[in-house]
Amino acid sequence: MKSIRYASLLFSLAVAAGNLANAQTQTSVPLSIMPLPASVTPGQGEFPIDGQFTVGFKGFTEPRLDRARTRFLNILFRETGIPFSAEPAPSSASFEIEVKGPSQTIEKLGEDESYHLTVAPDSVHLTAANPLGAMHGLQTFLQLVRITPHGFTLPAVTIDDKPRFPWRGLMIDSGRHFIPLPVIERNLDAMEAVKLNVFHWHLSDDQGFRVESKVFPLLQQKGSNGLFYTQEQIRHIVEYARDRGIRVVPEFDMPAHATSWFAGYPNLASGKGPYEIAKEWGVLDPAMDPTRESTYQFLNLLIGEMSALFPDAYFHIGGDECDGKEWDANPAIQEFKRKHNLKDNAALQAYFTARVQKIVTSHHRIMEGWDEVLQPDTPKDVVIQSWRGRDSLLEAAQRGYRAILSNGYYIDLNQPASEHYLVDPLEGISDKLTPEQTASILGGEATIWSEFVTGETIDSRIWPRTAAIAERYWSPQSVRDVDSMYARMNQEAVRLQSYRITPQATTEEMLERMSGDSNPEALRVLASVVQPPKGYQRGGLRKYTTASPLNRLVDAVPPESETARVFHQLSERIAAGKATPEEIQTAHDWLVRWRDNDARLQPSLGNSDLTAELAPVSRSLKQTAEIGLQTLEVLKANGTIDAATQKQQLAALAAAEKPQAVLLQMVAPAVELLVKSVKIQ
Amino acid sequence: MKSIRYASLLFSLAVAAGNLANAQTQTSVPLSIMPLPASVTPGQGEFPIDGQFTVGFKGFTEPRLDRARTRFLNILFRETGIPFSAEPAPSSASFEIEVKGPSQTIEKLGEDESYHLTVAPDSVHLTAANPLGAMHGLQTFLQLVRITPHGFTLPAVTIDDKPRFPWRGLMIDSGRHFIPLPVIERNLDAMEAVKLNVFHWHLSDDQGFRVESKVFPLLQQKGSNGLFYTQEQIRHIVEYARDRGIRVVPEFDMPAHATSWFAGYPNLASGKGPYEIAKEWGVLDPAMDPTRESTYQFLNLLIGEMSALFPDAYFHIGGDECDGKEWDANPAIQEFKRKHNLKDNAALQAYFTARVQKIVTSHHRIMEGWDEVLQPDTPKDVVIQSWRGRDSLLEAAQRGYRAILSNGYYIDLNQPASEHYLVDPLEGISDKLTPEQTASILGGEATIWSEFVTGETIDSRIWPRTAAIAERYWSPQSVRDVDSMYARMNQEAVRLQSYRITPQATTEEMLERMSGDSNPEALRVLASVVQPPKGYQRGGLRKYTTASPLNRLVDAVPPESETARVFHQLSERIAAGKATPEEIQTAHDWLVRWRDNDARLQPSLGNSDLTAELAPVSRSLKQTAEIGLQTLEVLKANGTIDAATQKQQLAALAAAEKPQAVLLQMVAPAVELLVKSVKIQ
Repeated sequence: MKSIRYASLLFSLAVAAGNLANAQTQTSVPLSIMPLPASVTPGQGEFPIDGQFTVGFKGFTEPRLDRARTRFLNILFRETGIPFSAEPAPSSASFEIEVKGPSQTIEKLGEDESYHLTVAPDSVHLTAANPLGAMHGLQTFLQLVRITPHGFTLPAVTIDDKPRFPWRGLMIDSGRHFIPLPVIERNLDAMEAVKLNVFHWHLSDDQGFRVESKVFPLLQQKGSNGLFYTQEQIRHIVEYARDRGIRVVPEFDMPAHATSWFAGYPNLASGKGPYEIAKEWGVLDPAMDPTRESTYQFLNLLIGEMSALFPDAYFHIGGDECDGKEWDANPAIQEFKRKHNLKDNAALQAYFTARVQKIVTSHHRIMEGWDEVLQPDTPKDVVIQSWRGRDSLLEAAQRGYRAILSNGYYIDLNQPASEHYLVDPLEGISDKLTPEQTASILGGEATIWSEFVTGETIDSRIWPRTAAIAERYWSPQSVRDVDSMYARMNQEAVRLQSYRITPQATTEEMLERMSGDSNPEALRVLASVVQPPKGYQRGGLRKYTTASPLNRLVDAVPPESETARVFHQLSERIAAGKATPEEIQTAHDWLVRWRDNDARLQPSLGNSDLTAELAPVSRSLKQTAEIGLQTLEVLKANGTIDAATQKQQLAALAAAEKPQAVLLQMVAPAVELLVKSVKIQ
Repeated sequence: MKSIRYASLLFSLAVAAGNLANAQTQTSVPLSIMPLPASVTPGQGEFPIDGQFTVGFKGFTEPRLDRARTRFLNILFRETGIPFSAEPAPSSASFEIEVKGPSQTIEKLGEDESYHLTVAPDSVHLTAANPLGAMHGLQTFLQLVRITPHGFTLPAVTIDDKPRFPWRGLMIDSGRHFIPLPVIERNLDAMEAVKLNVFHWHLSDDQGFRVESKVFPLLQQKGSNGLFYTQEQIRHIVEYARDRGIRVVPEFDMPAHATSWFAGYPNLASGKGPYEIAKEWGVLDPAMDPTRESTYQFLNLLIGEMSALFPDAYFHIGGDECDGKEWDANPAIQEFKRKHNLKDNAALQAYFTARVQKIVTSHHRIMEGWDEVLQPDTPKDVVIQSWRGRDSLLEAAQRGYRAILSNGYYIDLNQPASEHYLVDPLEGISDKLTPEQTASILGGEATIWSEFVTGETIDSRIWPRTAAIAERYWSPQSVRDVDSMYARMNQEAVRLQSYRITPQATTEEMLERMSGDSNPEALRVLASVVQPPKGYQRGGLRKYTTASPLNRLVDAVPPESETARVFHQLSERIAAGKATPEEIQTAHDWLVRWRDNDARLQPSLGNSDLTAELAPVSRSLKQTAEIGLQTLEVLKANGTIDAATQKQQLAALAAAEKPQAVLLQMVAPAVELLVKSVKIQ
């Protein structure tokens, strides 16, 4: 059940852990579908996938559906290795898809995305009101495929499915680190796989303006270090996304987070300049000058140009984290505030937002903004994206705005999948809203901010955790079983390899690179139990700029150690006295491996300046494992421990839990559980 | 030193093997360059690669060189994780490239490809007569990068380099299995990495015609099952290859191997038809009718159309394996032979070839053909590609033809890299040739025929072995150290991951897929010591057609088991009485692992119809390991064995060496060495 290849544990350990996970999830998860459908009715028998398998359409057809069929067959080939005919299907196909009619030319929020899928032993039928539902059904089909003693099959089943929320998004920040086009493409593929339908594209920030503007070419010429998307590439991505039932909502962040604009157009800014692309991370002072008409003339032309590129009805103007320092330092702006009776900078930003909203509206777009844009006079059609807390979501809905939730879905913060998974847009607030207000909460968006990710590492930060978040947005609210989620998410991680999302392979390549060793076995063992720091901790541990290479262990490992998670579960059972002797033996073997790994790893760490800093991390793992082994001995003997020793052990573990080399060692918290479960003498 | 990730052995074993290999190669291979340069002079110190690294051009420039620079920086990023500026270099770059002048607009055989590279601690200089040499030098630079205790560096060195042969090719067969465009692209990237300069593209065969023809559209419409390259895609690949200093030589095989043509144009054929795309492999009867003028009119138009797509001076018309059966069965053709005094089918084919040669020449191309086209009257400008044996190479050169060698470089036959590596185009024949005749041997081509490869598996069949073959074509004839070759080839396999050649990841995905297990540890152990059958054996072991899925263990594993190769070396040392106690212990631990693996693997094999057939292979590995362990005990005790027992053991090993489940188990030959080294009582 472990998908993390580089954590190549001894076979017996892997089997034990696998059995543990299976035992926990087998009853509740017969099918490894993610997100789980609204309704699943098991049937009798299986439908075989072999070389005779064919796909045909009935009812409405369009070129997009033909392409969806080709894409479906390509993935099915990757899932099975069976070649399927690339020719159009014959009249009687074994998998028949009936689409009732077209979807909107420009995909619209709230379109019917439902589908009905019936798998019988001799045929499969998929029906949907439009291509959007049909494409969702194709992805469900692909998730049902599994190998059996008689070949690849789908279990007989009837599925009736539709999404809980109409806005199910992933935001990618191409501003801070440029994310190459192929990476965007494969993430759209993966979004389709888990039925996400909004790609929110954060396209500008202090560190880069990433779209070619023909009206204001200095934006990309002076604001991108040469790393930007051409208009042709943007159009390609919009088409690519539409092909997958995904809307593209562009974001151009303003009035702050816009230093890169000012490199080419300093007159837009409130300060004196000169400006250059920001090299630091964080909340920076530069902000547009909201008092000059020329600012709005510029924005009118730019938003007009960008609206022509992005056909979606929604246009995101950011609006977050304007610290107002440049405004305070500019006498003309101070004078403007007084003259217009704007009591503070929030009021000044509200004035700016209202002006921009009119521009956005004049280009036939609906404005969206981060929750800072929610002010007393904000026009009612603005969509609020809550990021600072859930309160703004509630407030927005109560005041009649439509809103989406991102607070709790900040996947750049390296929290466990379970934490994101249990955040529900409606939890704890639905009883405070009318049904109409509840319906105005449109859904949510996972957000990957890119201070600490590059095109190389972004996949491992987004996936597979975003599959769990996608389930939150799609599946019934009652779907909340964390063990089932992990079991299915790990399966989904394997499946996403067919969509070219291969973070495990990237981890392995990075370990080889940083060690200069083509088989860095001992480094893999260490890597399997460490994690990046959580929340906003990383920036405080070391100085990072836009030029910092992200090529160390913290960048190579996934945000959540699956090995440590399973070991933590084991430790919980042991601490609670519920573990079997086999489970205790598994924990013991694991601890031995971690203890002994240090002696194997230390000699090579100094060969590379990227691994030299790992020496104390490896030692800490050894010490943690030694404490764990001592504790297991005591527990097995039903013995006790003296208070002083326990105190010492807990102090050592507390030290081991502190970040070292910008890494969290994740065995220590589990061993702490074990230590605390021992009786004091 | 092991690059095969899925062969995740116990740490101690891996280290032991690594040390073994290091000990063997350390003295002879200071730098991991492949192909080895003509001349390397070590210097003092190191050149650091950090964020300040910049690349600039002096002398001749062109857009292709700018793109080469971008590509170089992308690979350097993948090798280091350090971001480099995408902006054009400043005036004083730390890496200065001086190109004297342009290369030919259409790359020509025999252009100057030499370069001179000087790495000093403070700067790097590359000079070349033209962009071809410069691009080779860039690849050498990338191979010199390694991680050290003070970061990524290049050792100070002076390299003077040029190729031994002007024609260094890789042939890919897109006819039998269509190979998708991205796969072609990344193989061109990898060809550039190892300085190959000819992409021979086998574009039609009995099973498919893979290029869009606008003149004869039924070729692709009825002859490709929808799997073909558009003309736009062809032009893209030609440009893509030229960008990498690679010529593209198209092959349209005729008069046989052309059934797919006849599906749309049956009048071309000698038989009555009707014809359809071949579903079987092998030498098939259909052949063009060489007696009808309409055949030559067709070929004239088609070759004219294709020459416009492929600008290279050479045009390959195949000419191999025409069995003549359709000719014998056609009275009109028999009559034609009599009338024209053509004594046999070879003479008839020579007539055909001569006619086609005139057509090819009329389109300003030089004809190339497989060695069958070498007949008494073959025009002297035809290039002969020797595949059936080395005799034709010698004969061609002696008779004044230019020739290239492919016999010995058939990488689809799954021979070890060492066998291909030691095949030299000039070995044993240069003393039979004048200097001028010797110079007419232009080089060689590795060939990957695609009966048993798909786009999914082709990378592992081509790489890394083709890197060793590339060294044969590029490096001085005296470079023949097999141990050094394996050490550097395994390093190159790691490096090729930066060029998106990731067969190890594909192996892992295929093992997961066939087992339905996301961590198939025991299956990996078995996979690490089995190989596909060699030569033409596979087709005789099981019935294969174009519809056969290639998704079993034989397809997942690389052609050469690195684990078994290293174990074989160990066994040789043990059998010769030269092994250290540590080496004997390593062999012992390995054998224990293989013996015990069976009990772990068997329970899961039946879960999948793709792995069920592996039960006897796993058992055979267990038995082999048991014999090995018994033998080691005897050897350690300096004991003897009775003749009957030895006979039994050898019989068991002989059985284990026979293909099972279309696989060769590669531990048995090594254990056989051990058994044979024991003294008889």
